[in-house]
Amino acid sequence: MVAARLLTRNALTKPRVPPRLFFSTTSNRMSYRVERDTFGELQVPSDRYWGAQTQRSLQNFDIGGPAERLPAPLIKAFGVLKKAAATVNVTYGMDPKVGEAIQQAADDVISGKLTDHFPLVVFQTGSGTQSNMNANEVISNRAIEIMGGELGSKKPVHPNDHVNMSQSSNDSFPTVMHIAAVTEINNSLIPALTELRDALEAKSKAFDHIIKIGRTHLQDATPLTLGQEFSGYVQQVTNGIERVKDVLPRLSCLAQGGTAVGTGLNTRKGFDVKVAAEISNITGLTFVTAPNKFEALAAHDALVEAHGALNVIACSLMKIANDIRYLGSGPRCGLGELSLPENEPGSSIMPGKVNPTQCEAITMVAAQVMGNQTTVSVAGASGQFELNVFKPVIIKNVLQSIRLLADGSRSLTKNCIVGIEANEKRINTLLNESLMLATILNSHLGYDNVAKCAKKAHKEGTTLKEATLSLGFLSAEEFDAAVRPEFMLHPTE
Amino acid sequence: MVAARLLTRNALTKPRVPPRLFFSTTSNRMSYRVERDTFGELQVPSDRYWGAQTQRSLQNFDIGGPAERLPAPLIKAFGVLKKAAATVNVTYGMDPKVGEAIQQAADDVISGKLTDHFPLVVFQTGSGTQSNMNANEVISNRAIEIMGGELGSKKPVHPNDHVNMSQSSNDSFPTVMHIAAVTEINNSLIPALTELRDALEAKSKAFDHIIKIGRTHLQDATPLTLGQEFSGYVQQVTNGIERVKDVLPRLSCLAQGGTAVGTGLNTRKGFDVKVAAEISNITGLTFVTAPNKFEALAAHDALVEAHGALNVIACSLMKIANDIRYLGSGPRCGLGELSLPENEPGSSIMPGKVNPTQCEAITMVAAQVMGNQTTVSVAGASGQFELNVFKPVIIKNVLQSIRLLADGSRSLTKNCIVGIEANEKRINTLLNESLMLATILNSHLGYDNVAKCAKKAHKEGTTLKEATLSLGFLSAEEFDAAVRPEFMLHPTE
Amino acid sequence: MVAARLLTRNALTKPRVPPRLFFSTTSNRMSYRVERDTFGELQVPSDRYWGAQTQRSLQNFDIGGPAERLPAPLIKAFGVLKKAAATVNVTYGMDPKVGEAIQQAADDVISGKLTDHFPLVVFQTGSGTQSNMNANEVISNRAIEIMGGELGSKKPVHPNDHVNMSQSSNDSFPTVMHIAAVTEINNSLIPALTELRDALEAKSKAFDHIIKIGRTHLQDATPLTLGQEFSGYVQQVTNGIERVKDVLPRLSCLAQGGTAVGTGLNTRKGFDVKVAAEISNITGLTFVTAPNKFEALAAHDALVEAHGALNVIACSLMKIANDIRYLGSGPRCGLGELSLPENEPGSSIMPGKVNPTQCEAITMVAAQVMGNQTTVSVAGASGQFELNVFKPVIIKNVLQSIRLLADGSRSLTKNCIVGIEANEKRINTLLNESLMLATILNSHLGYDNVAKCAKKAHKEGTTLKEATLSLGFLSAEEFDAAVRPEFMLHPTE
Amino acid sequence: MVAARLLTRNALTKPRVPPRLFFSTTSNRMSYRVERDTFGELQVPSDRYWGAQTQRSLQNFDIGGPAERLPAPLIKAFGVLKKAAATVNVTYGMDPKVGEAIQQAADDVISGKLTDHFPLVVFQTGSGTQSNMNANEVISNRAIEIMGGELGSKKPVHPNDHVNMSQSSNDSFPTVMHIAAVTEINNSLIPALTELRDALEAKSKAFDHIIKIGRTHLQDATPLTLGQEFSGYVQQVTNGIERVKDVLPRLSCLAQGGTAVGTGLNTRKGFDVKVAAEISNITGLTFVTAPNKFEALAAHDALVEAHGALNVIACSLMKIANDIRYLGSGPRCGLGELSLPENEPGSSIMPGKVNPTQCEAITMVAAQVMGNQTTVSVAGASGQFELNVFKPVIIKNVLQSIRLLADGSRSLTKNCIVGIEANEKRINTLLNESLMLATILNSHLGYDNVAKCAKKAHKEGTTLKEATLSLGFLSAEEFDAAVRPEFMLHPTE
Repeated sequence: MVAARLLTRNALTKPRVPPRLFFSTTSNRMSYRVERDTFGELQVPSDRYWGAQTQRSLQNFDIGGPAERLPAPLIKAFGVLKKAAATVNVTYGMDPKVGEAIQQAADDVISGKLTDHFPLVVFQTGSGTQSNMNANEVISNRAIEIMGGELGSKKPVHPNDHVNMSQSSNDSFPTVMHIAAVTEINNSLIPALTELRDALEAKSKAFDHIIKIGRTHLQDATPLTLGQEFSGYVQQVTNGIERVKDVLPRLSCLAQGGTAVGTGLNTRKGFDVKVAAEISNITGLTFVTAPNKFEALAAHDALVEAHGALNVIACSLMKIANDIRYLGSGPRCGLGELSLPENEPGSSIMPGKVNPTQCEAITMVAAQVMGNQTTVSVAGASGQFELNVFKPVIIKNVLQSIRLLADGSRSLTKNCIVGIEANEKRINTLLNESLMLATILNSHLGYDNVAKCAKKAHKEGTTLKEATLSLGFLSAEEFDAAVRPEFMLHPTE
Repeated sequence: MVAARLLTRNALTKPRVPPRLFFSTTSNRMSYRVERDTFGELQVPSDRYWGAQTQRSLQNFDIGGPAERLPAPLIKAFGVLKKAAATVNVTYGMDPKVGEAIQQAADDVISGKLTDHFPLVVFQTGSGTQSNMNANEVISNRAIEIMGGELGSKKPVHPNDHVNMSQSSNDSFPTVMHIAAVTEINNSLIPALTELRDALEAKSKAFDHIIKIGRTHLQDATPLTLGQEFSGYVQQVTNGIERVKDVLPRLSCLAQGGTAVGTGLNTRKGFDVKVAAEISNITGLTFVTAPNKFEALAAHDALVEAHGALNVIACSLMKIANDIRYLGSGPRCGLGELSLPENEPGSSIMPGKVNPTQCEAITMVAAQVMGNQTTVSVAGASGQFELNVFKPVIIKNVLQSIRLLADGSRSLTKNCIVGIEANEKRINTLLNESLMLATILNSHLGYDNVAKCAKKAHKEGTTLKEATLSLGFLSAEEFDAAVRPEFMLHPTE
Repeated sequence: MVAARLLTRNALTKPRVPPRLFFSTTSNRMSYRVERDTFGELQVPSDRYWGAQTQRSLQNFDIGGPAERLPAPLIKAFGVLKKAAATVNVTYGMDPKVGEAIQQAADDVISGKLTDHFPLVVFQTGSGTQSNMNANEVISNRAIEIMGGELGSKKPVHPNDHVNMSQSSNDSFPTVMHIAAVTEINNSLIPALTELRDALEAKSKAFDHIIKIGRTHLQDATPLTLGQEFSGYVQQVTNGIERVKDVLPRLSCLAQGGTAVGTGLNTRKGFDVKVAAEISNITGLTFVTAPNKFEALAAHDALVEAHGALNVIACSLMKIANDIRYLGSGPRCGLGELSLPENEPGSSIMPGKVNPTQCEAITMVAAQVMGNQTTVSVAGASGQFELNVFKPVIIKNVLQSIRLLADGSRSLTKNCIVGIEANEKRINTLLNESLMLATILNSHLGYDNVAKCAKKAHKEGTTLKEATLSLGFLSAEEFDAAVRPEFMLHPTE
Repeated sequence: MVAARLLTRNALTKPRVPPRLFFSTTSNRMSYRVERDTFGELQVPSDRYWGAQTQRSLQNFDIGGPAERLPAPLIKAFGVLKKAAATVNVTYGMDPKVGEAIQQAADDVISGKLTDHFPLVVFQTGSGTQSNMNANEVISNRAIEIMGGELGSKKPVHPNDHVNMSQSSNDSFPTVMHIAAVTEINNSLIPALTELRDALEAKSKAFDHIIKIGRTHLQDATPLTLGQEFSGYVQQVTNGIERVKDVLPRLSCLAQGGTAVGTGLNTRKGFDVKVAAEISNITGLTFVTAPNKFEALAAHDALVEAHGALNVIACSLMKIANDIRYLGSGPRCGLGELSLPENEPGSSIMPGKVNPTQCEAITMVAAQVMGNQTTVSVAGASGQFELNVFKPVIIKNVLQSIRLLADGSRSLTKNCIVGIEANEKRINTLLNESLMLATILNSHLGYDNVAKCAKKAHKEGTTLKEATLSLGFLSAEEFDAAVRPEFMLHPTE
């Protein structure tokens, strides 16, 4: 007990010990306690709160190592769920002292202090049962500790009978999947995208006066302002924010209360509604109980749908970042219309070179998210009867996509977008060399005649004006009066 | 002229002639007329309304053959757009007679009568310019014919100056993409999914009294009713319908009015709003002008998003159809809980065998749609500056997914779902053999004791009751009073 | 019989009539005959050779319409298989006259003459049983006709007992999948890629003397020749050819002889080897019998693998085409290093604009193939026990990818690559403006000093030479002697 | 210096400190030293070997946290490369003492001791430049330490001028990508798959005498042995091993020697060949220099191809694991033909339930790998001109797929396959209830008559024998003589 408490205090600063290390290390300083489940006894490191089922999973699923652990937001969501369940269970008759200890232990999970006590990887049982048991075991042992009991004794707080009361892994795990996804979308992704949108909008306004050549098919086209060009990016990100908001209603439906197969066996009528309310209370976000628990356990369509929105954002960011790096290409042999911030030396061999590295990072994020979409779809389509058993890989990919898009957007905003400058001189030079201002003459000369002018100038390397005049279609005065880029930026009144 | 008119009349009943056939055939009966564009003259079959640019594309893009033609709903959408544009252009001063002739010709396109005059494949220019010109050429020639002019003369109806008036391929093609997708979703997919949902719901109600074994991890679990199981499918399809409805607002935003790069150059102020209103009028569906035309040309996020919803439906149908075929597996060596309709002989070698072929068809549809998601995402992410030039492949895949999901759902409903019968005898036998009714004893005996009973029965091949009694936990009367499947179908009051 | 014969003769020139049309048309000119299977009788159009099972499938799987029919190379492969089987079956005792009639009818299928008699779509039974029966029915009826019998009588040539003798759909369909894929790869894809490779190689040689700026991260980098740049493309396509060749050994293994579940029941020992030999004989390509028939029916790993090679080719072509269109961007506001052939007018609104349309087509092909990879993988992973029932969708996607890559490569070669010209003047201008020639000074001045020169020139808008001189690192003579692009194209001796 | 050395010694046992922690911590115990690059000075933790460019990347790319760090095998490959380069550079004149120190420092990297000194994440610059610099900085500082110099002084071992001598990030990073992938495939994946194959083969042999019902379309089919069924899995895994072996030749081609753009500027003739030879020497695996360095920098087709092979293995494992879990479904209400090992309690609510958790883990692995295929393809297709800048995300996904497939296969083998037992009683019961033994009668009675018997038995719930006798087709003796499962397992002689 004393050892355990000591170790607990240290847990906040101690390193994660990867599972492989555990079993190969024969340190005489490593101490253990015995934990047991229906399969028998097992040794567990004394400084860890987890119990037999977690330990068993660690040994049986040595797949991928620490990088493949279930992500932190999911662990925190277990804290939220178990706290909420305890609160509701007390209203149904659970000993309030037990309830309070569970709540306090769950708060430690929510705070992130106990994350190192959740060592299990994604590639375990497909229902996430072992991670639900990990949560039950850690919280029960921590609650036992709080109440002065002995770790591993399951008294006075039993992992199944108390912490998991009225719950099954089959409804708990999908519940924490949704809690984690909704929380990360609200608290991380939407703010990050909003920052990006705002930064793009600021640029759009700042660049509103700069008329530049448009490009379609990568070919010179009619002009627009640089501000208009950026307004397209603003619209994309604005829509992206709306898209993720639009998936929240279905994502906020919680499976909790369905227990093992969706019927709600071994739970009490109203438990589902009360738990959802309590979870809303704890998180400050809206959650409701799922209208059909059979669907909520057996399918993860809401997460496939949510990832669909993430996938669109990835596609948007791919497009925006590609534009920006091409517009910033050069310094002398590219398009050169934008200057991107110099954040680091670009090359270990080519001095003076600065690369669009933030664009590169975000486009790699986009590629990752586009692949995660396939993973989530394959996994989401693979439910069987009353349960989908691809839960951990689904939520891992969804949370990874959320985090990468959020972190990547923040990094892009801070380290690139806000520092973008327009090379007005270069932009102006290109605009005036272009032949595509010709389009404005369509209404004066008709399509076929205008085509003749433009083709003549192109073939002979002259300006559009020279070609038009030499073909006798217009006088110089007429040409100058007609061909004015500032008239080409909007419809005619 | 006469020949052309004759051929036109026949066009409704005549076969599609694939392009390869055209050019290899040296029939002395094939007659041609000359069409011209800014590149020069070209021979076009006399019985086709298309002009030089269509013909040129046919010759330059011999990729994939007739199976890769742009789908019919897109062609019809061109009819809708060109009719609406003519209506609006007349209000801006276009000759009403020309306008009327264009409207009438466009109606022929909408009706499907002229589909054979749209021979171009998906793998052409990425802006769909050549298909927009195909529409302009066909409608102008048909309008010329209506007005008594000479095909190919471009008088009195010019494909560019009149049919394409105030438009560019760059805003027209994305507009017809959205018109086609919205129309097919509304008129085909949603009704088909609604039929499927209703058929599943009818089964859910009809099966409401049938208690069966639940299965999680494919292992026996606590019971539920067959009606409850089907209610999960109902929820999935219901959500699927909501999902596609939820993408309609952004999909109903039209690019028209952006012209070449999004600025609206060469169009009139208000044209965009009026055209959208007129398109709503023609289709009876709600369309609005896009809030930002730069985004609407350069990105196709709304279609990537829409396909995301289709992808979820595919995942749902994969799950539902997999369940049904496993539940119907047998006849003697499978689960055998359901009987599926016998629609055809199942095997060329094994007499008497009937296969879940409708489930197989719809799961193949799902696999196709899941792949189309990747295509649409890759293409959607690949816009450059003012234009995304993957337009045809995006809309082809979106429309294919819509059609396959709609047709597949209708086929599944009609040929499978409505005819499903429950094998109540088999269902009951399995239920009573199961050990998983044990779960209900958790509240009587506690988790660990119940585990002992179930494991003992499992190991010894006895019933749960025998094991529980022999362990002395309960009397026979107590057991019978406690273990009643009908108590296991919902939460406790 | 007479009517049927008449109609048959016409079948070669008559149009495909899509299934929907069939059933909605109440033409009094349409005549039918009765066909029957174990399920009962059915009316079949008199001018079609197919029988009851095909007709039943047409009615039960109204999914996707004619565009979703199984592709022609697969139909031809059925001809090959049924011919080979008849040849071998005669050696095992089948009536040689029946055998000969089957062979002759199968030759009609191989020739493509009977393609219109194969109306079934991809989304049917997942084993392709109905298409195997379609082949059996068409060939038996055509053979009956050849022998002077009555269509639909199943005498003297029975679709099951004779045409399908020693075969099951479960081994026949995977066999034709492999025959079709191998044939199309050999006869279409490899020649098309070889043409493309050769065209790129010709350009690489022609451009060998042109020194240009290199670009990494889209930023100016050290120089290379345009020929070197193209040599990378040549290597990619060369490797692509090797990649598809490398999958042929496993793809040439045939399932035939496994019959229903892989055991070879109802076939004769040696049948598998003989059929593979005969198929090699007919096609002129190497085929062998699969080493394990259970794997050959239940999995389609060889096709997933083959598509993996197609997917790499798609990625290669995406890269090459993207480079070419960016290098050809302009005419005045892009990179402008290459001139691409002008094949068509580029825009309906912007006269004189010519777009990289062939690059656009091939990149859309690439996006399609990348999505097909997902479809093929999902379908390939979904086998169950003794059979994978996603066969039609797998082969449809594989054959589509092969055809699109082959057609697209041919189109790209012919309409773009061979006509590419280098804009040497522009290339030279860009090269000399660049600062990146600085890299060659690393060995003279050290990395940090070179960085100073390049950054100074960049900041001040001067040349590298001016900056280097003003910093006093080198004299003009030393600079000119050191900084020579032609020294930067290869390692130092 | 002293502090740094002390800290270094501890580095082996100290925890990884995630970057966010670094910058938010204001510990007065944290000490720093100053490092500098061409951009200026930066503080670096004294106990870390990395320098300014690494530190800059840490600050500029706060994306995804420690879980997104570049994987360990890639870090080790940097050790291999830098050691080999030093060896070769000494032959070209580098100070042998410097070379020796670099080799020794590189050995520390290879050993894994310095992995904590590589904190950079995947989502950085797309060329991996910053990780190459991380390697240069760590190795130079460690080499400086070995030679008694001052960390951060760049003397006597400069990260660019010595550790990176004759190299560029642009050829180094693709080189380590290939080294890491080839090494992991050889040392981890192939052995793991071989174990799996052998375990399956052992089962196939052990089960060779057990005749069971076959299942096609999930429906009862003709019999096979359980050994035959497993032989299909053996073939799949055997082919999988061959598939990854087949990609090794192209994957063993190294980019090293191409330097910045592929020309080999700033390297010496022959350097490329010598480095590849030295890398082969260090790793004990065959590597050669790439035939075309332009392709090797600008494209990663070889890795897309390699992942294609991994993707096929994922599909194979998905199929095998699905079969096994369905065959093991039950215990009483499923197919129940196999017993899988009980490794852990299956459910937190349902006592006595044991789930196919290893199958679930490996199918989740498969879903992940199938998604990674999309990521790798998108990234692989996105090279631009002389460089593909999606390098880190490509290799991250490739190495993740390799590790998950290897670890997952080992786990599946050890914890599931070797412990599978056949439930012979159940298998035999199902076999004898089946109607599908009827197929053997085709040659006796003809297809249509056999169909009658089977359908009669099916409809009336009788045995096939009873039906056949009652229809008068055979006597009891004839039936028994004909219908013998053991005759149905192979072709007829």
